Amino acid sequence: MEKYNALYAQSGGVTAVINATACGVIQTARNNKDKIGTLFAARNGILGVLNEDLIDTGGESDQDIAALRHTPSSAFGSCRYKLGSIEKNREQYERLLDVFSAHHIRYFFYNGGGDSQDTAYKVSQLSRELNYPITCIGVPKTIDNDLPFTDNSPGFGSVAKYVAVSILEASLDVAAMASSSTKIFLLEVMGRHSGWIAAAGGLAAQQTGEPPHIILFPEIPFQSEPFLARVQHCVTQYGYCSIVVSEGVRNPDGSFIAESGLVDAFGHKQLGGAAPVVAKLIKNNLGHKYHWAVADYLQRSARHLASKTDVEQAYAMGKAAVEFALAGKNAVLPIIVREKGLHYRWTVGEAPLEKVANVEVALPRDYITEDGFGITPACRQYLSPLIQGEDYPPYVNGLPHYVKLQNKPVAKKLALTSMGKVG
Amino acid sequence: MEKYNALYAQSGGVTAVINATACGVIQTARNNKDKIGTLFAARNGILGVLNEDLIDTGGESDQDIAALRHTPSSAFGSCRYKLGSIEKNREQYERLLDVFSAHHIRYFFYNGGGDSQDTAYKVSQLSRELNYPITCIGVPKTIDNDLPFTDNSPGFGSVAKYVAVSILEASLDVAAMASSSTKIFLLEVMGRHSGWIAAAGGLAAQQTGEPPHIILFPEIPFQSEPFLARVQHCVTQYGYCSIVVSEGVRNPDGSFIAESGLVDAFGHKQLGGAAPVVAKLIKNNLGHKYHWAVADYLQRSARHLASKTDVEQAYAMGKAAVEFALAGKNAVLPIIVREKGLHYRWTVGEAPLEKVANVEVALPRDYITEDGFGITPACRQYLSPLIQGEDYPPYVNGLPHYVKLQNKPVAKKLALTSMGKVG
Repeated sequence: MEKYNALYAQSGGVTAVINATACGVIQTARNNKDKIGTLFAARNGILGVLNEDLIDTGGESDQDIAALRHTPSSAFGSCRYKLGSIEKNREQYERLLDVFSAHHIRYFFYNGGGDSQDTAYKVSQLSRELNYPITCIGVPKTIDNDLPFTDNSPGFGSVAKYVAVSILEASLDVAAMASSSTKIFLLEVMGRHSGWIAAAGGLAAQQTGEPPHIILFPEIPFQSEPFLARVQHCVTQYGYCSIVVSEGVRNPDGSFIAESGLVDAFGHKQLGGAAPVVAKLIKNNLGHKYHWAVADYLQRSARHLASKTDVEQAYAMGKAAVEFALAGKNAVLPIIVREKGLHYRWTVGEAPLEKVANVEVALPRDYITEDGFGITPACRQYLSPLIQGEDYPPYVNGLPHYVKLQNKPVAKKLALTSMGKVG
Repeated sequence: MEKYNALYAQSGGVTAVINATACGVIQTARNNKDKIGTLFAARNGILGVLNEDLIDTGGESDQDIAALRHTPSSAFGSCRYKLGSIEKNREQYERLLDVFSAHHIRYFFYNGGGDSQDTAYKVSQLSRELNYPITCIGVPKTIDNDLPFTDNSPGFGSVAKYVAVSILEASLDVAAMASSSTKIFLLEVMGRHSGWIAAAGGLAAQQTGEPPHIILFPEIPFQSEPFLARVQHCVTQYGYCSIVVSEGVRNPDGSFIAESGLVDAFGHKQLGGAAPVVAKLIKNNLGHKYHWAVADYLQRSARHLASKTDVEQAYAMGKAAVEFALAGKNAVLPIIVREKGLHYRWTVGEAPLEKVANVEVALPRDYITEDGFGITPACRQYLSPLIQGEDYPPYVNGLPHYVKLQNKPVAKKLALTSMGKVG
């Protein structure tokens, strides 16, 4: 078997465990030095490829690479940059192949969500067409949990655990204060297009009546009357009401409730978060004192509270990607397969990139209770295994010890294209 | 030594470790059954005393009491209720003594901040005046870290750790995204009157240039020009800017910036959080894409990330309170004493309630850098020991296993007073 170089790139919003995937890729490549030459990483995702801004991961110590497993965010940088259609942007795709060719790269591992898998698929097709042999392997990642085929998307399980633990803890707080002070607590979570993350908050309630009492999903148009009635019912019944709000909750007319009614001093619409809007609605109509939190990046970077299951799966996806490439596979994505049985067991499977690209898996309607405010037992059964286990990072001086790689740049071999620097 | 009953009550905003203090009180009382009869807890703090709504902690198993050590929030409920001056509200103070007398209570442990210690002190004075012998021991607690005499206030160390870890993790996230997307991240933290909690965010930056790059303190009037210049400097220098914002940051005219300029659909001022206001200011002036988070209750309930030092100190305060009472002390507060030396060591000391009541310790100006945007080495040296060590709760099914006590009510012996039910 001839020895070629490889390239790994991270794409899109980062997660608490995407570096565990990087760790799986790099360690497995290092274990196969007879087959893989240099393993490059692209700085800032696909932009690093377009700009020929590469990193030689061989410059990092084994110890630092091992530490990637417990380090959140993206060790090489990521980006939000979507390549256009291949018909209108063929130049960009050809540029990718030029960079691969210049650095003798024959393996391309692209770690991202649906958009990224679309790019990886197109690159694999173009390479065939242009007769430049690139092995394209997708590597799954997204906190949105919307990739098809795979049981779940690496990154999601840790966000799910963070949201469930956070609403559990904050609900204990409001419960203790409710007799004379705050009666309403709202936690806003990510998920602009789907309610997977909001649904995970429901795991905190293990018995009837336990918080969160209400979950607001993007899938269920927000109607204030039944919502306010439910809030008041909870305050009467439990003394307080704890609510998880997805950032993507919409009014019946389709507009985001986060955009409802707030204007700044200049009269501009203010996207102030969904939680404060709902909090104010409750205050105006029911008069209860409220507190709200917006977790934002905290939820997807919280490696200190990662799901052990998620970390193991993220690592396994990186390892499998390299193994797939060495086994001669192409244009595929390793996936997590849930085995049948009472207890959660998973294995590694594969899916064709062609069928993964641009497909978004929605939260099934039967995972949401009929009234639209909670999760069903089927949803709990699906979600619960994904938050199992703890996987703490080491701490030094009271803080998690996260690694910062050297990331030394590789000398460029190409001129800038007519596109100039991208991004 | 005659055997009398005791009463424990929690007051004010709850914390991740106030139940560790409760654990210290109850376990120490149980170890002294020859001297202390029934240990009651007041439901919902001082309101439970006024309303004679008591709990017999003897009904809880040793196992459940031990689990209080790792359970956040307040196991018996807390309240926001300040007793008025004794001159104008003597009836309320007398009611406390009536309840003590009816239940043969001679030891009163009041776990709270400055206001609560004021109440405890007044009760001790009144009991002397009325010749009803009550031993009043204060027990320190507040995330605000503003109690005098004590090295720090139990509850603060865990919030400090949460804020430092959260801004560390979220900053890694924005750093990875900054090349093509979000360049500004803001984390809003508690501390309406002082910047102790905001200062703790500074612990995440262990070397020059590390995030957070800017801290906005309530102690420093907010001026947009130097602030925006600093933000732009960070974006130019580091590629992004990570900011900790205290909820208590004020404009030079003294108004909260959280109140700046936002009005809802009805034209009412909207307290939308300081972080979104500052984020919008940056966007309007510098054009950078931003994300913001508001930690709110998450920061003070995050027992999953508690400081081990804080947990140990919180427990020690509860234990010492009971030991003080049994040693015949009265109208005192156990405190944490920082011993001299290179390494952090602490012992338990005591302070007179009279001098603790209503004194708020401010963040010293020399803990803030001259430019007003960071913390000094002296501040770091003070804060760092308080976040040392991890003390994880046990997990069951992927979630922390927090205890819920029985909290069975004690039969009332008194009629309601002319005040009726309070709270």
